[in-house]
Order: sequence, then C-alpha cells, then structure tokens
Amino acid sequence: MPKTHRRVVLVRRPPGEPAESDFRIEEVPVPQPGPREVLVRVIYLSLDPYMRGRMRDAASYAAPVGIGEVMTGGTVGEVVASNHPGFKVGDIVEDRLGWQEYAIGGGPALRRIDPSLAPISTANGVLGMPGMTAYFGLLEVGRPKPGETVVVSAASGAVGQVVGQIARIMGCRAVGIAGGDAKCAFVKDTLGFDACIDYKATDDLDAALRAACPDGIDVYFDNVGGPITDAALRNLNVHARVALCGSISQYNATAPETGPRLLGTFVGKRVTARGFIVSDFAAHYGPALRQMGAWIKSGRLKYREDIVEGIDKAPRAFIGLLRGENFGKLLVKLGPEPRA
Amino acid sequence: MPKTHRRVVLVRRPPGEPAESDFRIEEVPVPQPGPREVLVRVIYLSLDPYMRGRMRDAASYAAPVGIGEVMTGGTVGEVVASNHPGFKVGDIVEDRLGWQEYAIGGGPALRRIDPSLAPISTANGVLGMPGMTAYFGLLEVGRPKPGETVVVSAASGAVGQVVGQIARIMGCRAVGIAGGDAKCAFVKDTLGFDACIDYKATDDLDAALRAACPDGIDVYFDNVGGPITDAALRNLNVHARVALCGSISQYNATAPETGPRLLGTFVGKRVTARGFIVSDFAAHYGPALRQMGAWIKSGRLKYREDIVEGIDKAPRAFIGLLRGENFGKLLVKLGPEPRA
Repeated sequence: MPKTHRRVVLVRRPPGEPAESDFRIEEVPVPQPGPREVLVRVIYLSLDPYMRGRMRDAASYAAPVGIGEVMTGGTVGEVVASNHPGFKVGDIVEDRLGWQEYAIGGGPALRRIDPSLAPISTANGVLGMPGMTAYFGLLEVGRPKPGETVVVSAASGAVGQVVGQIARIMGCRAVGIAGGDAKCAFVKDTLGFDACIDYKATDDLDAALRAACPDGIDVYFDNVGGPITDAALRNLNVHARVALCGSISQYNATAPETGPRLLGTFVGKRVTARGFIVSDFAAHYGPALRQMGAWIKSGRLKYREDIVEGIDKAPRAFIGLLRGENFGKLLVKLGPEPRA
Repeated sequence: MPKTHRRVVLVRRPPGEPAESDFRIEEVPVPQPGPREVLVRVIYLSLDPYMRGRMRDAASYAAPVGIGEVMTGGTVGEVVASNHPGFKVGDIVEDRLGWQEYAIGGGPALRRIDPSLAPISTANGVLGMPGMTAYFGLLEVGRPKPGETVVVSAASGAVGQVVGQIARIMGCRAVGIAGGDAKCAFVKDTLGFDACIDYKATDDLDAALRAACPDGIDVYFDNVGGPITDAALRNLNVHARVALCGSISQYNATAPETGPRLLGTFVGKRVTARGFIVSDFAAHYGPALRQMGAWIKSGRLKYREDIVEGIDKAPRAFIGLLRGENFGKLLVKLGPEPRA
C-alpha cells in the first residue's frame, strides 16, 4: 500500500474551453477508512461531458466542484481496506469517488460489481451511468415504436452507441450522427446502425438527414445541441419526441450562443421535447442493468471504450472529450485490474 | 335575400408582413344550397393568428389557402335557407365558412348554437376554438397543479385571457405578459390574474418575471415565441412544462429568426415542451364546453371581445392582430344579430 497517491483538483473556473492549467495534480497521503467505510484503489475513472457543468459556479441540478476540491466522477475500483461489514478486501466496486487514485467509499452509491458478468470497466459505461442514460432516455423519454426512425447525435459516444443499438433491438431504423469516417464506419458496420452521417464531411446536414431518414425522424436523442440539433429538429415528423440528454457543443460557450428559433415549428408538428437526468430513473436501474447485461451476453449490444492511461492524462483527455476527440466511452485507467 | 355578397380572397402570398393588397374583396352571387346543405348568413368572422400560416404555401398541419380562394376562418351565422334535415331557417350555427358574408354549410363542422346560453359571438371565442385551445393546452399539456405558477403570453388575447383565468380556478398563481397599460390593467383587474407584465414598458423582462414569479415558473403557455418566450424559458423551474400554442412574433418572419439557444437548459431542469393543435382534442370538446359555460355563468370566467364592423375591414384588422393591436378576441361583425 503506497503512502501517497495522486488526485486532480479544480483550481480555476474557465469561462470557455478548459485548459490543463485549470486543473492541478496533487500528491497527498492515502486516506484511512473510518467506521463503515472502505478504502478503494481506483482502477477506472469515467470522464463524461456533464463534468463541464460541475466546473461552473451556477445553479444546476448538482452542486459545483469547489475550487481546490477533487473533480467529481464515477469510478470502478478494488477495495483494499474495509471497515464496512458489507464489503471485503478484493471486492470490485463502483462509486462516485472522483478523479483520484485512492478514495474513501461507503456512501449510498457504493455497489459491488460481479467481475464474472462483464469487464469491470463497463460499470462506468454500458452497464453504468452512460448505459442507463441511453436506456431510459430512449425508452422512457423517446418512447420509440417499431418501424419508427430514431436519430442520435454523438452516435459513437458512450451514450449514443447504446441508444442506436437499443433502437435497433426495438425494431426501429437507427441513424447516427458522428464526426469522421472511422466513427461512422464503426457505428454502421460494428454497431449495426442503419446509417450514420459524418457531420464533418457534410455541408448540408438537412439533406443528409432527409436521405438517411426517408420517412422523417420520429425520435431525436440529443447529445450535442447546436447546428446538428437544428438540422434534426427541422426534419422531425408529426408527433416526434426529442429526448434532451445533453448539449456538448454548448458546454464551453461563455454565453448562450444563438441559433434559429425552431420552437415554433413544434406546434404544428405536435413535437414533445423533454429534458432528463439519468438519476431520475435510479429506482429502475436494476431491471435495466439485467436487460442490458443479457443483450451484451447475446451479442446484440456491443460497446467501444477509449482508454487513456494515468491520472495525469485525465485533464487533457477531458478537454479532448469536449472537442469530440474520443472514440467510444472515455475512461482513464489509473491502475491495473486485479488478476482473476 | 340579396343577390350578391362580399368575400375576401387571397391574391398574393406575402413573404413578410401581409398588406391589404395581398387580399381582394370580391362581390359575387349568393350561392344556393344543394341537398343536405344550408345557406348561412355570416354574422361573426373570427380572426386568429393561425391564419397567417394558411397564407403560406408550405407543409403544415393544414392545407394552405389557394391563390384566388376565400380565406379560411371560423364563423357564426344564421341559417337563411336549408335543404338539411338537421337545420332550419333561423338556426344560429358555427362552422368554418371563411371570410365571406354568405356561405354554404353542411359539412361535419356545422353545429347549432343555443343563443340562450351565451352571446353567439362566444362560439368564435371563449366557447369556441380559442377557448378550447386554452382549456386543453393548459390542462392537458401544461398540467398545472394547485399552488404552481402559470405564465401566459399574449395574456389579453383570445386564448391568453382564458388560460390565466383557468389557472386561477385551478388554484395556481397566474401571471400574464401583455403589451401596454390598458391590457395589463384589464388582465389584472378584470380577469383577476395575480400579476401582468407590460413587455413594452419593461427593459428587463427576466427581472420582471422573477419579481412577478417569486417561486419561478412551473407552466409557461406560449402564444408568442421570440424574446418574450426566451425570458420565460430562462425562468422555468425544475420539471416545468411548456405548452407551445403559437409563435405570433415569428409569423411574419421571412426566414427563421435567431435567438439564444435555450434547449440545453431543459436538460438539468427536466423541462417538457410540447406543441399542440386544439383539434387533436376535438373528441373532448363537449364536456369542456359545458365546464366553460358553467364558469361563465357563475362569473368565474370573463372574456373580452374586440369587434370590427364590416368585411372590408377584415384584412386591416388581421394585419393589426399580427401586430398585437387588438384588445381581446378579435371578431369581424359582418351583419346584424337576429332579434331575439
């Protein structure tokens, strides 16, 4: 057991795009667990777009990270010391322990993972928060019906890749929007979407959507906001549903950007647009995780991870995430997995 | 019975604000009813914002008015000749007969009105399409709960005035937004809204909304779109509902105007915005009309009409409606009411 470990704290609230200098990597003593607590060696740190919001000191559904505080984030790790009757040394656990190599767990979010079911990294991805976001956002907010067309932006990302595959399982036409040839090929050929539009190679996204969605768009799952979303909204069908999951294109904006006013078009089309937060569905995670696990086991649900090594790489990787540089669910591997 | 009558036809599709020259007043023979038809002398013509959409040759939930065709519109009139077994001369009827002094009725929209229940003009207003729009838009789309705050734009208009009063009946705080002192005084003092913001006298609508809605906005009923709606959207509460009824501020725009991108703010707040068309609720008009009639009878639901005389005034009145110049439900009186 090392005496010290590294963690990443927020040192400045960037108004626009974050820089590595907005974070500081600290070396601090490894903490000791108190009663009913465990010490966790973090193996995987999840990097997710929502973290940009936590860097702002603004009213939100969650409290911001304080200046000098460890960045928040979902983690998968190994229990290395335990004063908790429910967890023993060697247990693999998921919790929201933040950007650090060791951390104290024991709160209500701590849960044991069965490593025999799936690679433990998936507890930060397809079998974790992003997977649940896709599952509930599509099925409960988007409410697709067989034969309908589902469009999802950031289609190769942690959430988007799951959305399109569940849409296919539900009997829908699944159309992705992603940036670059490689991502689009993966979305179509590996994940089995019906089509994928490379927005970087398209100068008329409306026309590309019309071509990829000959029957229009019934469900649009929005991860990006901005001009990509504008194009999707212009091609919605009557009674379309828009699941508002995120707006990554806007997260670094210093003030609200402007765009075409499209809300008025929702009237005649009877469009419903609904924002959601995955934790609103927390009471229903259990059955959803079992369903997702079964789909993975049967080969119907695939996933791709983009793994960066070393906590010192986390700030740069996060900045890249906001630029769309990752390819698949972005994780930082902080240490080795235990031998099976 | 006159041999000829006047009607208003569309002669040009204006790209922006309509001009009187986009319409033509024609004098044509009074038509003769065929089998199962009635001849109606129109007494009231309803002028409504949706008609601007019918002047466009664009895909919509309803077909456009053709060039040279009579403008569409809701009407109240008197049966002056009948070959229909269900209607007799002297009956007062409501139908969608358009901008003309005489018209043939007999389609599925033709319905008899009981003049003893309320003034017959209300069949074009509080007890007609605008009233039903308010009723279903607020109750079925907005879904207000007692104690919540409901904000409605165009609050003195045909729909807005009803929305706020039903909100009050439901136990909500009702806040209107309207243009000018007189309209705001009417909304507060006569209709009983808790507050009304004069957007023409306010240079910080966000601050005015925060002051008028100390607990935030739970339901926003949108009739206008544009900057007024932006301000309302910025002040929504978590789990707020937005009933998208219309966007009158945008109807004369030649291309989508731009505005701040606010859809991303719907995510953390879990906002639901839903567009609706009143006719989607047509199967439920009966009970709604009985409820509205009872509220009128008991004095809980008031209404104001803005009546212009003569079909030749219809184009100018309609242009004024799009500018917000009317004060209350805008009607054109084409001829006298029958003596009781």
